[in-house]
Amino acid sequence: MDFAYSPKVEDLRQRLAAFMETRVLPANRRWHALAEAGTYPLEVIEPLKDQAKAEGLWNLFLPGLKPGEPGTRLTNLEYAPLAEIMGRLPWASEVFNCSAPDTGNMEILHLFGTPEQRELWLDPLMNGDIRSVVSITEPDVASSDPTNLQTEIRRDGDHYVINGRKWFNTGALHPLAKVLIVLGVSNFAPDAARHERHSFVLVPMDAPGFEVVRNVPIMNHHSPEGHCEVVFRNVRVPVANLLGEENKGFAIAQARLGPGRIHHCMRTIGQCELALELMAARALERKVFGKAIADYANNQDAIAECRLEIDQARLLCLRTAWAMDTFGNQSARVDVSAIKIIAARMQTRVLDRAMQVFGAMGLSNDTPLAYLWTWGRALRFIDGPDEVHLRVVARDEIAKAKARTGTLDPYFTPPDAHP
Amino acid sequence: MDFAYSPKVEDLRQRLAAFMETRVLPANRRWHALAEAGTYPLEVIEPLKDQAKAEGLWNLFLPGLKPGEPGTRLTNLEYAPLAEIMGRLPWASEVFNCSAPDTGNMEILHLFGTPEQRELWLDPLMNGDIRSVVSITEPDVASSDPTNLQTEIRRDGDHYVINGRKWFNTGALHPLAKVLIVLGVSNFAPDAARHERHSFVLVPMDAPGFEVVRNVPIMNHHSPEGHCEVVFRNVRVPVANLLGEENKGFAIAQARLGPGRIHHCMRTIGQCELALELMAARALERKVFGKAIADYANNQDAIAECRLEIDQARLLCLRTAWAMDTFGNQSARVDVSAIKIIAARMQTRVLDRAMQVFGAMGLSNDTPLAYLWTWGRALRFIDGPDEVHLRVVARDEIAKAKARTGTLDPYFTPPDAHP
Amino acid sequence: MDFAYSPKVEDLRQRLAAFMETRVLPANRRWHALAEAGTYPLEVIEPLKDQAKAEGLWNLFLPGLKPGEPGTRLTNLEYAPLAEIMGRLPWASEVFNCSAPDTGNMEILHLFGTPEQRELWLDPLMNGDIRSVVSITEPDVASSDPTNLQTEIRRDGDHYVINGRKWFNTGALHPLAKVLIVLGVSNFAPDAARHERHSFVLVPMDAPGFEVVRNVPIMNHHSPEGHCEVVFRNVRVPVANLLGEENKGFAIAQARLGPGRIHHCMRTIGQCELALELMAARALERKVFGKAIADYANNQDAIAECRLEIDQARLLCLRTAWAMDTFGNQSARVDVSAIKIIAARMQTRVLDRAMQVFGAMGLSNDTPLAYLWTWGRALRFIDGPDEVHLRVVARDEIAKAKARTGTLDPYFTPPDAHP
Amino acid sequence: MDFAYSPKVEDLRQRLAAFMETRVLPANRRWHALAEAGTYPLEVIEPLKDQAKAEGLWNLFLPGLKPGEPGTRLTNLEYAPLAEIMGRLPWASEVFNCSAPDTGNMEILHLFGTPEQRELWLDPLMNGDIRSVVSITEPDVASSDPTNLQTEIRRDGDHYVINGRKWFNTGALHPLAKVLIVLGVSNFAPDAARHERHSFVLVPMDAPGFEVVRNVPIMNHHSPEGHCEVVFRNVRVPVANLLGEENKGFAIAQARLGPGRIHHCMRTIGQCELALELMAARALERKVFGKAIADYANNQDAIAECRLEIDQARLLCLRTAWAMDTFGNQSARVDVSAIKIIAARMQTRVLDRAMQVFGAMGLSNDTPLAYLWTWGRALRFIDGPDEVHLRVVARDEIAKAKARTGTLDPYFTPPDAHP
Repeated sequence: MDFAYSPKVEDLRQRLAAFMETRVLPANRRWHALAEAGTYPLEVIEPLKDQAKAEGLWNLFLPGLKPGEPGTRLTNLEYAPLAEIMGRLPWASEVFNCSAPDTGNMEILHLFGTPEQRELWLDPLMNGDIRSVVSITEPDVASSDPTNLQTEIRRDGDHYVINGRKWFNTGALHPLAKVLIVLGVSNFAPDAARHERHSFVLVPMDAPGFEVVRNVPIMNHHSPEGHCEVVFRNVRVPVANLLGEENKGFAIAQARLGPGRIHHCMRTIGQCELALELMAARALERKVFGKAIADYANNQDAIAECRLEIDQARLLCLRTAWAMDTFGNQSARVDVSAIKIIAARMQTRVLDRAMQVFGAMGLSNDTPLAYLWTWGRALRFIDGPDEVHLRVVARDEIAKAKARTGTLDPYFTPPDAHP
Repeated sequence: MDFAYSPKVEDLRQRLAAFMETRVLPANRRWHALAEAGTYPLEVIEPLKDQAKAEGLWNLFLPGLKPGEPGTRLTNLEYAPLAEIMGRLPWASEVFNCSAPDTGNMEILHLFGTPEQRELWLDPLMNGDIRSVVSITEPDVASSDPTNLQTEIRRDGDHYVINGRKWFNTGALHPLAKVLIVLGVSNFAPDAARHERHSFVLVPMDAPGFEVVRNVPIMNHHSPEGHCEVVFRNVRVPVANLLGEENKGFAIAQARLGPGRIHHCMRTIGQCELALELMAARALERKVFGKAIADYANNQDAIAECRLEIDQARLLCLRTAWAMDTFGNQSARVDVSAIKIIAARMQTRVLDRAMQVFGAMGLSNDTPLAYLWTWGRALRFIDGPDEVHLRVVARDEIAKAKARTGTLDPYFTPPDAHP
Repeated sequence: MDFAYSPKVEDLRQRLAAFMETRVLPANRRWHALAEAGTYPLEVIEPLKDQAKAEGLWNLFLPGLKPGEPGTRLTNLEYAPLAEIMGRLPWASEVFNCSAPDTGNMEILHLFGTPEQRELWLDPLMNGDIRSVVSITEPDVASSDPTNLQTEIRRDGDHYVINGRKWFNTGALHPLAKVLIVLGVSNFAPDAARHERHSFVLVPMDAPGFEVVRNVPIMNHHSPEGHCEVVFRNVRVPVANLLGEENKGFAIAQARLGPGRIHHCMRTIGQCELALELMAARALERKVFGKAIADYANNQDAIAECRLEIDQARLLCLRTAWAMDTFGNQSARVDVSAIKIIAARMQTRVLDRAMQVFGAMGLSNDTPLAYLWTWGRALRFIDGPDEVHLRVVARDEIAKAKARTGTLDPYFTPPDAHP
Repeated sequence: MDFAYSPKVEDLRQRLAAFMETRVLPANRRWHALAEAGTYPLEVIEPLKDQAKAEGLWNLFLPGLKPGEPGTRLTNLEYAPLAEIMGRLPWASEVFNCSAPDTGNMEILHLFGTPEQRELWLDPLMNGDIRSVVSITEPDVASSDPTNLQTEIRRDGDHYVINGRKWFNTGALHPLAKVLIVLGVSNFAPDAARHERHSFVLVPMDAPGFEVVRNVPIMNHHSPEGHCEVVFRNVRVPVANLLGEENKGFAIAQARLGPGRIHHCMRTIGQCELALELMAARALERKVFGKAIADYANNQDAIAECRLEIDQARLLCLRTAWAMDTFGNQSARVDVSAIKIIAARMQTRVLDRAMQVFGAMGLSNDTPLAYLWTWGRALRFIDGPDEVHLRVVARDEIAKAKARTGTLDPYFTPPDAHP
């Protein structure tokens, strides 16, 4: 459980930070100008991708690479400080082929894909030639309980026929998006076990019957790549498009969620560091009633609270990454739930404090704060609402308590000890 | 301090609620469709204004009406439950000629306007023929300390010449907006008292040198009427456009802020009631892990916390309105600061809980929750940041403590009382 | 719903405040000295009781007095500001015959007692000649769900025989305590309705088989009158000692709890006002790093937060009292639950802030803060834990939501409204 | 920064845990019975000390031991998990010669003591033959700003003469307490630097003129060893009793505070783990409204929140210990402030939740919760109030922001980027 950065990671950190400073940040305004004009800023991103790949800053996230596959083969623990740096700009991860949902999708294709699926989808994803979508959440049911999902994947001869409606399908409007990984009911037997009823299938974006209905805004923010509502109307894919085993979709979803969730947490920590930097800078330069905002004890407290929260969250994030590396994603799932709750809640709190120091400007788009604040709020749902993850943590604690029954009596001092 | 609704108010409440239900609410989707398409929804609003005026639901907010002036002549206390109802739809107040910043602007024109100013600006405002803008906040200084304001209003013969940059000028893009009420420095003497250096002047929107630079979004929401950044470049207005006395702008600003602030609070309470209604409805119909969300004790707690907050805030809002009616806006200013803090913070908390029950849908624009949540965050700056108002409340408390010095000794039980 | 104090109440307030200042407060240190020495301070209290009775400051709490009964016949709303004043010293209520649990006990004896019970117990209670105990909570079950109670009250000929263990029996060590009002199971039929199984009986303190086992400290504070653990071992009382109807104990308990709960809330508000006064005084006189604590913005915020909380709580307390007076205790029970939650939580928060300003002294007994802070924590259990009351509020809200089903649709702007 | 426990530490942990379970815990009720009867439980502790020493569980805390000195020579990082275990019983640390304030006192005697001072005071302390007191806090000034301290230490020939009043002198009533380490003003020159005016001197408890005035209770808890108010009236000690250099008391105090503070944090974490264990056990066995408390989602949330807080705090505590070991106490002081704030606040929150699950029993002394809750509140003052430590963290953050000036511009997207 050594959280010091190894020389290898330290080297990557410095190169990544330099790349961000000299290449990515200078393009930030151009990226925003294009995005606001309705053009996905490929012209900004594609050249940066080439440069990042050339400098070995590519696919930093993928632990189990095989010889010949492009990427740096880092553990989750090693990846954490790098994801933090990339997280400082919401669009930067794509430059390094490290953006959601591709990272999670690549992980499950890596783990469960057939050779054909890997060749068709994983290789171009790993090369950054295409992007992908994960299609799980549905508008009509509480998807935090995935047994609620209703999209149907019915076997029909050599094909699956898919019918259903999904939303918050991130990236479905990205010009390079080519494939969706779709979770739906595939076992309609009334007595089927609750967690053995769903499958994942791969659906090309150009499959007939598939339609992007709209780009659902998140707190009024229409992301350029989209968090889309989509429909599948009798979409047919060959049975070869099944990912993993039939009716084992839940196990795959679980495998996918660990890394996906912690990547968000790592980026969140970077975003909170940035917010604290911006907040402290603003507090120094802004004056009210005759002195700098930084000289007021309530603002000092707000700054300190951010530091307390960030440092604790980072350490728990690193420990969780270490546990995933050491014991596997499934064994670390309680820790993943814990850091997932903490990071999302921290983001709204830290950003809230930072915005308050900025005054009305903090409400505008002139700073990154307003977007990050609303994104933090969204994170409290993305990959599962707080309530579901608190439940995971609590049930683990209660199970431990059951195993400990009867050992705590000596800590009580009942009446006979009170003379 | 009687908070029961009088028969007159009860009658207005019922008529207003019926008007909202039968006329305003059915137009809600059309309003949004137009606004999102970039058209200010006058075609929705203007007919509703005529109907509201015809039914006597007009200018409900203005306490001191004179004979012949259109409106209902309600006290602040009487207005509160009506503003609550109007607040349930963010665009509804305009239907009843009760929207910010017109209400505050009408109040100061009513109090300080010359007969010519009243004829030119107040009468059409009270008739709903035009709308107005208040131009105070500046991008370059912390405007919560208004002595920081830098826009210049220099006398030049029979004119004032105005130079400066303002932002968060609400309504500057409204098609009926005709006049700005601008606060700036007018006394440049180095030894001028800090609170006797600024004046208000009336500036027509078509004055040469005035320009709307952009519509600043609030949390990515570009309001159709705009929260605009504007510039004044050598804008000339006749000296007759001075509002009230020269260099007495602060006193006018103070007079304006009481009612403006509490109107926001009243509407906030209505919005929080709506959010609680939506939240409880959703909790009843949404199922997770086999039972309705409403059956989980943590969601029940969330619902109950909303009720606790709303009821307390409403009572304090009513008391503040009563104090304004009874003792005047200036005497009630500590109460106004108190309810201002409470209402804005409550809105983000209540809406946050409501969104959480809605799941991912709560992030979208399909419900009113996401907008109201971000609006609540903005309210923590609008009309002054929390910090300024907490300071007002604290200083009042500390002044009372000074007056009480020495009376508390008998409450202490120093060592000699401990045998 | 008029919360202004009537001339009658204003007169009582002034006389009560003067009595507190000139007679009660000067005895405060003597009271504490005696209590710490283990002597119940009757020698301090009894003369004050005579004076209070002589001045008409007696039984202020009891709304439904009959001619000839001693007391002031105030409504709950009228009583609230007086209870606030008495609450400032934890032992002061007894001086005015207004202390728990006697007030609640007198109420139910007033409502449900037979003429003989009234003569034997109510009259001396109303005269302040004796004190009483209410015996409900049991150590072995979660008494917040009263169907859990296990103490048995079995009919045996002309007697009831009582067996069981209770605790947190406040006042059982008071030298004037003469009677307990005991709740227990009286209907042992397996098919008895859950809320028709318990009865109240009156048990003299000197009944054979009754024993005070110990004075249970609350956060290390051994109250001089005791929050006692007691046992009933085959205690026999005549059937005439049944209070109200057999097996209707729950209805009586409900009738009792409304006023008892709100009296605690009123006193809590007074205690919080005192804490705020002490806190502000201390902040003015204490210096750190070269300026007064009151000059630091974080302490100012803390002071302001106290004012915000207290004012809101007081208004809700008054509204609840008004609702009890107007609609009856049962109809007001949701409001009672609401203010019960709010007041107890407020007390720990306000006191926590006050202690922090006092520094280490705040931990000691030299100020009243440490005791009041721990008492506030206890209040979160006394008369029911927060969780039970939040549940009451939530279920009421959810019931309202059910009645409103389907009315909220126009507030949604589903996809078709987003062109 | 490796937080895994080394084999050496793992071995010590297991032996210590076994010692706690088999020897210390069984004596817990006897310890309390004696303490409540007013006898310091030496008869319980002394035999356990002999056993602990014999088993090599002695002076675990002291990093810089020299050959021949008794103890285990652990780093702060290694000591942390052991202090956690000892912390589970408030009186257990003494068994292992690891209790405050002796640990801090031994550290400064170790660092600054003369050979004679070491022989007279340090050797018997390290052997557990005597105990000691640190005498800093004063009742009349805000001691969180130590320049406020007023106790005088005046040179008079070969002696220092001490006059002043101190309080919260922990351990002054311990039967083995033999020496106080006293901080006071020693440089009365008006132009003396603020941080070079105070000295530490060693004062034997039997020095004429020294008196223990009273045992100040903390939240009504009179600790058996005392948190005493003491006076020095013309107390004379030889100049050889000066600790370190004259007028360099602040530097010594700083050296002392790091370890002292973090030891409290380590123990706090152990206490919070115990509270969580007790809470979960109670939630499993307690039923309300027909199901176990552990089955309610709000209680599950409460349990989960405890786990989230404890795990984060422990990691930050370990990192701080590591930083102290690696960079020195002074360099780690911001981290020490951070964990000091976090641990104390966590303790009141975790214990508050645990008590709530226990119901009324949680208020009594029958469980350890009530004491630990109040102790957590006290910890928010002990070794400096939260406000002082937040200020330390904030100032560090602001200093970093100053060094970073101007680097953040590319993160802003000012108007020209909004086409």
